[in-house]
Amino acid sequence: MRLSSFFMPTLKETPTEAQIVSHRLMLRAGMIRQTSAGIYAWLPLGYRVLRKIEQIVREEQDAAGAQELLMPTIQSADLWRESGRYDDYGKEMLRITDRHDREMLFGPTNEEMITDIFRSFVKSYRQLPLNLYHIQWKFRDEIRPRFGVMRGREFLMKDAYSFDIDAAGARRSYQKMFLAYLRTFARIGLKAIPMRADTGPIGGDLSHEFIILAETGESGVFCHKDWMNLDVLKDAPGMEDDLQPFFDRITSIYAATDEKHDPANSPVPEADLVSARGIEVGHIFNFGTKYSKPMNAVVAGPNGESIPVEMGSYGIGVSRLMGAIIEASHDDNGIIWPDAVAPFNVGLINLKSGDAETDRVCAELYAKLESAGLEVAYDDRDERPGAKFADMDLIGVPWQLVVGPRGLKNGVVELKRRATGEKEELPVEAALAKLLG
Amino acid sequence: MRLSSFFMPTLKETPTEAQIVSHRLMLRAGMIRQTSAGIYAWLPLGYRVLRKIEQIVREEQDAAGAQELLMPTIQSADLWRESGRYDDYGKEMLRITDRHDREMLFGPTNEEMITDIFRSFVKSYRQLPLNLYHIQWKFRDEIRPRFGVMRGREFLMKDAYSFDIDAAGARRSYQKMFLAYLRTFARIGLKAIPMRADTGPIGGDLSHEFIILAETGESGVFCHKDWMNLDVLKDAPGMEDDLQPFFDRITSIYAATDEKHDPANSPVPEADLVSARGIEVGHIFNFGTKYSKPMNAVVAGPNGESIPVEMGSYGIGVSRLMGAIIEASHDDNGIIWPDAVAPFNVGLINLKSGDAETDRVCAELYAKLESAGLEVAYDDRDERPGAKFADMDLIGVPWQLVVGPRGLKNGVVELKRRATGEKEELPVEAALAKLLG
Repeated sequence: MRLSSFFMPTLKETPTEAQIVSHRLMLRAGMIRQTSAGIYAWLPLGYRVLRKIEQIVREEQDAAGAQELLMPTIQSADLWRESGRYDDYGKEMLRITDRHDREMLFGPTNEEMITDIFRSFVKSYRQLPLNLYHIQWKFRDEIRPRFGVMRGREFLMKDAYSFDIDAAGARRSYQKMFLAYLRTFARIGLKAIPMRADTGPIGGDLSHEFIILAETGESGVFCHKDWMNLDVLKDAPGMEDDLQPFFDRITSIYAATDEKHDPANSPVPEADLVSARGIEVGHIFNFGTKYSKPMNAVVAGPNGESIPVEMGSYGIGVSRLMGAIIEASHDDNGIIWPDAVAPFNVGLINLKSGDAETDRVCAELYAKLESAGLEVAYDDRDERPGAKFADMDLIGVPWQLVVGPRGLKNGVVELKRRATGEKEELPVEAALAKLLG
Repeated sequence: MRLSSFFMPTLKETPTEAQIVSHRLMLRAGMIRQTSAGIYAWLPLGYRVLRKIEQIVREEQDAAGAQELLMPTIQSADLWRESGRYDDYGKEMLRITDRHDREMLFGPTNEEMITDIFRSFVKSYRQLPLNLYHIQWKFRDEIRPRFGVMRGREFLMKDAYSFDIDAAGARRSYQKMFLAYLRTFARIGLKAIPMRADTGPIGGDLSHEFIILAETGESGVFCHKDWMNLDVLKDAPGMEDDLQPFFDRITSIYAATDEKHDPANSPVPEADLVSARGIEVGHIFNFGTKYSKPMNAVVAGPNGESIPVEMGSYGIGVSRLMGAIIEASHDDNGIIWPDAVAPFNVGLINLKSGDAETDRVCAELYAKLESAGLEVAYDDRDERPGAKFADMDLIGVPWQLVVGPRGLKNGVVELKRRATGEKEELPVEAALAKLLG
């Protein structure tokens, strides 16, 4: 992408309305624009990252055997009356009346709808286990939306729903998602710690939140210091293996949100306990028959008997993740994207647009990198070098390739790694070879 | 995908509520489920196709230089008051009041919002031309939703918006989208005819609808019989070429919707005129300054003067396209997917699940096809051959590879092309070679 034609409205000033660094940086980098309180448009740079996060989430759900579908945003109130949650949900639910005066709502989650789909089609235990997920925009009418996409009203969530014939099956489905979540966050480049958590309005008795440590986190968290240097996926089993030993091993290392942590009865000696703040990026629940019983989602068992299915639900805040990544990975100059979700792989900086030789070398590098499948942000704008350096640092592209007339006279270009600031002068071909790896 | 675990609830009976064939077939093939009037969940098979259509639309927009972003579904009523359309839009607009009694709406289209984003960031003619698009769920509260996804209330639309400094630039932007649309529909495997059309509530004076001919079409259409055998992309220019000659050539071949066609003044002699029915799958508009003037979307021109930008908008009904494809491509046995959007490339039918040799050969073929990058629907279910043939015809996978014990004794399998019904017996390796092409 040539930045001269790319719609990336970066800001020089720090927006005053943004309280946390991810919100400030997303606004400054021209990634989002607020269109109403807590509602954002994703500008091209932001949307590129959002789609990459979404794709990693999708691939790991698929790898765990979950199947993707897509439920609509608008739901009927009647479904929520069946589960009893229509009145419970309160003002966070965006309630809507259509032209025929039917009561509708913008879905904040989908337990009811997926249970309805399930009961319409699945009649036998032989069709289980089943795990269905979608990645869809949800709405929660937060009284005071804030922190940019971290606590917005319209947000993108992946939610999966598992159906099993018995508690043992449901436990296995839960463990698969537990492993899938650890894999997902690791691929994105995040260290997410699973913590025992309250189940809240979703219900059930087994639940983990996946939490990224960050100073700006909304929740207080407590964990054993062993978490700090743990490679959580070391010796992890495959999806088809018995996951119980792995699950037991990981969950035996203490980690709990402040709601669950009881200082008087902490199982970890104070010297080994880390108290920190965190950002919730995922939440998984096993809630048994909480929805299947009232909604009559039953299947015929081996002996023909009617059995209400055991369910779980598994959420990842896809749009929120973008904020969490930035909170966990930035410096004074801007964002530092992990490679897996970076909007571009390489930022190519032309130090003197209009200089024939510099333009020629840049155009050649741009073509070669793109044709090798790398995504390149080519800064061919008519701007001062300082502005180009600042913007490229701000948008956080992992590699910067800097090309100018002075270097070219000596046959060299500069390659900079955004994360470390490490710079290296090297011949054009060597830089290319290094990037093409 | 093994059909034994794939969530694809096919129906044997024809659903009585469905009036048109695409709706019937989508329900029977387990592609969609209605969750409220005119609102559908996309089950895994349907969602696979939807995503393929969406990706083709995206690639052709990108190739035409449009840039993808994503605007939210929920919009503020105030924006629509600025353009004057809030009152005009009537009951088709789903109006919403949030917890703070702010008036919101579920966007039926995005001219206002994109104009607001534009005016916030673009200040100079040097930043033009610009074309921004998104692929997002929209809502129109149809009084009588019908025909399944063809006239649903919540629907997926690609809408692009172009911004130019003058009418000549706007014309060029329009022609680029005109060409991109022809390329998009051709890639999907559809013959779409651009027809002069009324502009309706979007406004403006230049507009084309892209129409697929189908007996069940909602609109009456008239066109010159030359359209019937025209290869519209023959000798088409590239995106960077002058598009005027191509545009003039294509639009000189008569085609008009019945609103625009005047029988008394038809430019085509009756013998050359085809009267048919069609389905609108795209609609493009050039509407000048209709939104930029009231909303003050102006840029500084070369001499510093304030110039309201010339705009156009360009829609493709992505979810509706799925219905249109099926209307245009099916037979008595089910759907016939064009290769480019088929949910799977190959349907692998195991005629005797449980037979060791048949299972072994099928598993091997399945692994080889998938590892070569083909998507395979492997019917390993414990069902009669007749049921497997019927389901595979119904879901319309382009190639069927049939493996049974009798054939294997002679070292052969059967390869069937869904579209033509053509069958061929051939050795396993030859079938594989043919599919891997």
